[in-house]
Amino acid sequence: MSAYRTLHERFARLGALGEALGILHWDAATTMPTGGAAARGEQLATLKVVLHEGLTDPALSDLLGEAEGQNDLDAWQRANVAEMRREVAHATAVPVDLVAAISKACSECEMLWRQARPDNDFAAILPHLEKVLSLTREVAAAKAAALGKSPYDALLDSYEPGGSTTAIDGLFAELAAVLPGMIDQALSRQASRPAPLPPKGPFAIPAQRALGIALMTRLGFDFDRGRLDVSAHPFTGGTSSDVRVTTRYDESDFRQALMGVLHECGHALYELGLPAQWARQPVGAARGMSLHESQSLLIEMQVCRGREFVSFAAPLIRDAFGGTGATWDAENLYRLGTRVERSLIRVDADELTYPAHIMLRYRLERALIAGEMALADLPREWHRGMRELIGVSPPSDTLGCLQDIHWYEGAWGYFPTYTLGAMNAAQLFAAAKAADAAIPAGIAGGDFTPLLLWLRRNVHEKAASRSTDQIMAEATGRPTETAPYIAHLRARYLGG
Amino acid sequence: MSAYRTLHERFARLGALGEALGILHWDAATTMPTGGAAARGEQLATLKVVLHEGLTDPALSDLLGEAEGQNDLDAWQRANVAEMRREVAHATAVPVDLVAAISKACSECEMLWRQARPDNDFAAILPHLEKVLSLTREVAAAKAAALGKSPYDALLDSYEPGGSTTAIDGLFAELAAVLPGMIDQALSRQASRPAPLPPKGPFAIPAQRALGIALMTRLGFDFDRGRLDVSAHPFTGGTSSDVRVTTRYDESDFRQALMGVLHECGHALYELGLPAQWARQPVGAARGMSLHESQSLLIEMQVCRGREFVSFAAPLIRDAFGGTGATWDAENLYRLGTRVERSLIRVDADELTYPAHIMLRYRLERALIAGEMALADLPREWHRGMRELIGVSPPSDTLGCLQDIHWYEGAWGYFPTYTLGAMNAAQLFAAAKAADAAIPAGIAGGDFTPLLLWLRRNVHEKAASRSTDQIMAEATGRPTETAPYIAHLRARYLGG
Repeated sequence: MSAYRTLHERFARLGALGEALGILHWDAATTMPTGGAAARGEQLATLKVVLHEGLTDPALSDLLGEAEGQNDLDAWQRANVAEMRREVAHATAVPVDLVAAISKACSECEMLWRQARPDNDFAAILPHLEKVLSLTREVAAAKAAALGKSPYDALLDSYEPGGSTTAIDGLFAELAAVLPGMIDQALSRQASRPAPLPPKGPFAIPAQRALGIALMTRLGFDFDRGRLDVSAHPFTGGTSSDVRVTTRYDESDFRQALMGVLHECGHALYELGLPAQWARQPVGAARGMSLHESQSLLIEMQVCRGREFVSFAAPLIRDAFGGTGATWDAENLYRLGTRVERSLIRVDADELTYPAHIMLRYRLERALIAGEMALADLPREWHRGMRELIGVSPPSDTLGCLQDIHWYEGAWGYFPTYTLGAMNAAQLFAAAKAADAAIPAGIAGGDFTPLLLWLRRNVHEKAASRSTDQIMAEATGRPTETAPYIAHLRARYLGG
Repeated sequence: MSAYRTLHERFARLGALGEALGILHWDAATTMPTGGAAARGEQLATLKVVLHEGLTDPALSDLLGEAEGQNDLDAWQRANVAEMRREVAHATAVPVDLVAAISKACSECEMLWRQARPDNDFAAILPHLEKVLSLTREVAAAKAAALGKSPYDALLDSYEPGGSTTAIDGLFAELAAVLPGMIDQALSRQASRPAPLPPKGPFAIPAQRALGIALMTRLGFDFDRGRLDVSAHPFTGGTSSDVRVTTRYDESDFRQALMGVLHECGHALYELGLPAQWARQPVGAARGMSLHESQSLLIEMQVCRGREFVSFAAPLIRDAFGGTGATWDAENLYRLGTRVERSLIRVDADELTYPAHIMLRYRLERALIAGEMALADLPREWHRGMRELIGVSPPSDTLGCLQDIHWYEGAWGYFPTYTLGAMNAAQLFAAAKAADAAIPAGIAGGDFTPLLLWLRRNVHEKAASRSTDQIMAEATGRPTETAPYIAHLRARYLGG
């Protein structure tokens, strides 16, 4: 058996274990009774250990070397070997004791954060977050040495392969140069018009669920290969042939669950569109978080908050809840979905102010990883940054630096991918509409097939066979850039 | 680290992987969309391979030898080592190629059986079943050599550790000597009375589900450590801290799902009562199938089809469906639940004729494993056996030798545990009632705590720390015997 074939079989096994983890995570979030938590912890930890052992097996080094020398591999096989090399490099960079220590520290910190957040008690969580940060910096240093990157770039690379602060700094600077002015303009334009009115509830949960399923189906989600369930924190999980989307319902506001479902549906369509013949191989996975987020934001922000989609969907939404009156008109719903506000909470932020929330977190986590800022100063720096970037002051840490789970659970280097995703979404959607006039026409008529086919061909089916920049360039002619994103925001929020 | 400690850690890992398998199996049967089947197959197969590799690691042999020589182990630790030795012996007995071949053959045969059964086409499945049988006989021979048992006993040992045809033959002969006469007598006694009348439906599924949950809760099932869901074939799965019970509902007949739920509840109470501190260790598992089935039958047959329970439950059942009239009276429901009939299908058989179905299958599978009967003769021999043992002739193989999944999926040596379980159930229940008068009094009043405490102390908490015979003897004074079972059947069906 060739080295490549051996690697293929080994990674197929690791891929299957990774899929098992995906289903067990979903079950824990949606289905598992509370009493199962401790045993589930053992199951997940054991699977992770088996995976880690598989990736750090010393035999892989020779096999990868041999496979890289094979001249009988096609482009996808070569890309697969490169992805294997990347996964092995990440896994072997970190000593096993450090893996165990950071995993334990993150679990503890995340658990305590769940209480510290509602308690507004940053001081209580600080020593635990110090420990997470200190271990994260050790991991970053170890990965930096192994990957030949800066410590922050080495962390970023886990979420955004090939991503770099150099590129992000350039893109974010371009955006930062125009965003504050755009927010000011959008707000004064908005203030000059009557405010849209939210439809009055209650909105029965079965009706919300049925509407979500109807729109997901319309967008191309295949319920023979996935599900929609409920969890405290919405996510898309499972596997690429069994995609598990979750949401949470609020009887007084249908829009939150609905927009959440449409967002997750974008993630799900990406997973469903990955090439089945490469399932459970590294090259068959989604490329990275900036493209993943581009797919959710392309559906949620570019398509579903657009006038064309809202015109198509408004009657369906109205009928789902038996609504009557002007609040259910497309124009009112459109304006509700594009309302701008200087606000405190990232996950509730509108499309226009959202990137400012990200820039703040990116700035802070870089300083913390670089050791240029003390963690004890985080509340003060958060406050200062919010004033500067968004123009509001959080009255508490609950509404400030305690709001996001990321750092507390150990996800450092993740935040910038949200805004990279928003940029990619705008750029891809502009290219799609330019490439095929049936795409915008289809959306207005509720036919999303032309768009889905374009996304499959240009993004989903490429999986991890190319870099993000290559996928973007092949699809749009350019690597990720800010111009289409800024143009989109300008058109939507400044009347273009 | 001592050899025992090392083994403990290794088996904890295997136990966690086994638990992951349990949840993934449950998900496949209850939740998974059809498109997930192929990937799920890979996930399950991979986990089984990892488990098998763990059990056949050559290093275990020395570790087990060392641990068996350690004189610092307590009784449970020694029993744990013995169970590890048993699991390793089963796993290493069969060459890995044979494991793969039989696994593949069974999957294929089971899949085709799903079509052959409704098609009444034994000829179509015969070559596939031949292959399964031939590989099963190879496995039996390999295990017989390794375990020092006969081939059939070696298969039986997987389901009923320490079980033997010698013991079963003796027990079954005692039962066979009286059963035909008892069936005749019960039927003529039954014919002399007016037939009970089934309540008229439809019975709404939410009401059936709520009733099942109410009675499970009453019996001691903890919904913080388990769930009730729907699957095509009812089972109890998951893990011992997260027990997943399933059922299927029929709107025209609530009794089938209800009795099924009570049966599975008995299995679930056993799992929930296993000692938490031994979770994921071999000694912490349920002892074997004859005790597992004893717990389901003790709840379903001994308790819930008894007059005391039916008197307590009849008003709850009536109210659940808003029923009125004499069909809902306890006496009518009791007689419906103890109706005897010479019938064709094992899973629908009543308590009195059920063992005859088992004796037929036991006789046939022993002859097939021994090579004393050709598989092509199975339909004819089935027909002959049904006439002889039950007095009816199946009009088709669908209602004959195609009815049960067991042989087609490779479960040979399993069938006798059903009737061993029925014997153990009668014997344990008689001992429980004799030991504590609060037990029968509690059942009549809907208080099952005294019974559950007795079962926990005498069966559940012992897990696999002792043999089935030891557990039976400590609980009842005697190893498994027929007298309490025959006395129970006589009292219930012949008017005692």
